[in-house]
Formats: sequence, structure tokens, C-alpha cells
Amino acid sequence: MSPIDFYFDLSSPYSYLAATQIEALAAKHGATVAWKPVVLAAVFKAADNHMPAQSPPKARHMLIDLERWAKQYGVPFVFNSGFPFNAIKPERMVLAAESSGRAGALARALFHAAWAEDRDITRAEVMADAARAAGLDPDAMLAAIETAAVKDRLRETTDEAIARGVFGAPAFYVDGALFWGNDRLHHLADALDAKRG
Amino acid sequence: MSPIDFYFDLSSPYSYLAATQIEALAAKHGATVAWKPVVLAAVFKAADNHMPAQSPPKARHMLIDLERWAKQYGVPFVFNSGFPFNAIKPERMVLAAESSGRAGALARALFHAAWAEDRDITRAEVMADAARAAGLDPDAMLAAIETAAVKDRLRETTDEAIARGVFGAPAFYVDGALFWGNDRLHHLADALDAKRG
Repeated sequence: MSPIDFYFDLSSPYSYLAATQIEALAAKHGATVAWKPVVLAAVFKAADNHMPAQSPPKARHMLIDLERWAKQYGVPFVFNSGFPFNAIKPERMVLAAESSGRAGALARALFHAAWAEDRDITRAEVMADAARAAGLDPDAMLAAIETAAVKDRLRETTDEAIARGVFGAPAFYVDGALFWGNDRLHHLADALDAKRG
Repeated sequence: MSPIDFYFDLSSPYSYLAATQIEALAAKHGATVAWKPVVLAAVFKAADNHMPAQSPPKARHMLIDLERWAKQYGVPFVFNSGFPFNAIKPERMVLAAESSGRAGALARALFHAAWAEDRDITRAEVMADAARAAGLDPDAMLAAIETAAVKDRLRETTDEAIARGVFGAPAFYVDGALFWGNDRLHHLADALDAKRG
């Protein structure tokens, strides 16, 4: 079976919630996960979509909704005080870790820093801490995010997501089927079971 | 316990899906349902919110997502060919049925006509069929929707929803807590259980 392509933005709190669940879900249903950060602003622009926070009562409700999901999952959550922030640099670092097989561990460490500890993951020292937590060399990773190859890779994952119809994050793509939202993980699980027969 | 105030628009397919589930959910968790149609366009305007169908890839995905939910629930579903339609008249009819205790039955009959049979529920004969299916007198109901009291009642339910922070449909309000979306029925159920202790 193809891996689940997990498209996320590190600045998206619902992406954080999904990131706390996706590996266990994949393992339970016989699948693996490809961690693919995207530039959500570029996705929104391509899809003519809007930030959910543009409606004031919707933005207020979102804070309550996020707390309910964190409670449901039993995971820590704090709304990041720098939101909305530009996650391009830490996202490049996740892609710099692809060949090491530690992209998922690094993404989870960065998500945790941003959404459980309210840290500023655009700062080099916070990225370095996450790299260390994921068993990676912080200096090598900080150098890698300035390379053309890694910058190109983030454009590639973003373009791939857009080409597959992604319009928001988190999104999941497996064998031609797209799922959108932390609140659709049960549909993703159903699809994985159907493929196993 | 207060009833669950169920805010819906008959032209909303996710409201239809929730309407197929809400009575069984309420019964299972010791609650009752107050069926409260609202004018969703007025709610969107007050909340500075957008129709989800404004993003083309999001609109395309919504059709697939609706099919997945219908399959999950085991209910028939067909996307209404007149969408988006103005449901003010059939919504008034639901409110005209409030005193009879058959508002829920009428709303379900209208939802079924629109979203399982692709009928035009803004037509008098279709509304009359739904009234009959709910055990109501069709002529009396069609007359009632032209009265000032019933017209005012739809403004009241819409204003009440807006005042409670509703920004889309379906929405659920019980004892000060707001839940939004067919995909949050499990959070509503958790809240009902917590209240029962």
C-alpha cells in the first residue's frame, strides 16, 4: 500500500492535533506516513480559500473546539501566542530530515514546541532543540534549511498538494483519495481498512 | 436538562446529515431536541462568514465528503440540483408546527425530500407532501407560513442563534455550550454525558 501523504503546516493547530494521532492510526490500519509540510498560505491562495479566523464568532469558537479535541485525544494544547506565524524555516528543516527517516519525529517535536509549549519555532535555537529531540544534528539541520535543494523541496510538496486538490490543512492523500481535516481521521481509517480488504 | 437547541437551514446538506442523527443521539444521552430553523444567509452575514463552496477544490471535495458521511450513517443522499436554494418558506412551516410537537417530524420530511429525493421544497405541493407525511394538515400549514407570527418566529430563531455565537449550520446549543457541525456530534454527546454526571 502507498504511504499516507500527510500534508500539514506547522502553524496550523488542527495539523498539530492530527500529528499527535496519525502514526498510531497508520500503524493500526497497516499503513505508513509520509510527512509533507506545505506552505498553507500558498495553498489557500491557489484554492481561493480563506483563513477560518476571518469570522470573529468562528475564531472564538475555534479556541473552544481545539480544547475539546485536545481533551478527547489526551494531549497538551496551548494556543500559540505568535499565531499566525510563518513556518517556512522549520518546515524546510522537516524536509531536510527526510533522508534520515526522522522527518516525522522532527515535525512532532516542532509541533509540540509550538502548540504544547507556546515556543517560537521560527527561532534558530528552538529549531535546534527540536532537531536534538529528534536525534538530529542541530547545526547540520540549520545549515541545510538554507540550501536550494531543501527550499525547492518545500515548493514541491506544496505544488503536489495543490495539484491533488488540497485546499487546507491538515490533509491526507492515499491511493487517489483526499481527506481533509483532523476531524476526518475516521474516514481515512475506513479507507485504509477497505484497501486491506 | 435543557433541550438541545438544534439550529439548521433546510438548504444545508450537513444540516440534513445531522438531522438524521440528532433524535437518536439525544435519546441515548437523556436529552430532547428543539428544532430551530434559521436563515443561514443572515447568520453568515452577521458572522462575516463565507459559503464553503466559494473555493472550487473545497466545493469539489465537499461532494465526496458528504457521500462518505451518508455511507457512515447509512442514509440516502443526493446533492440537491437546485442548490443553493432559499428555504425560508419551508422553514416557516417547521416553525408553524412547533405548537403541535411535530416540528421535528416535519423538518425531517422536508430534509428527506430535498436531500434524499432531490425535490424542490420551496414548491407548495412538496411542502404539502411533507406536512402530510408528518401528520399535519397541508392546507392549514401552507396558510400558516404567510402569517406575521410565523414570519416573526423565523427572525427570532435566527437572531437567537446569532446572539449565541452561531456562525454556520448545523449548530447545537445546550446549557451555554455551542457545538458546530455534523462532525461535532460526538463532542455534543460528551457534553450531555458530563451534565448527567
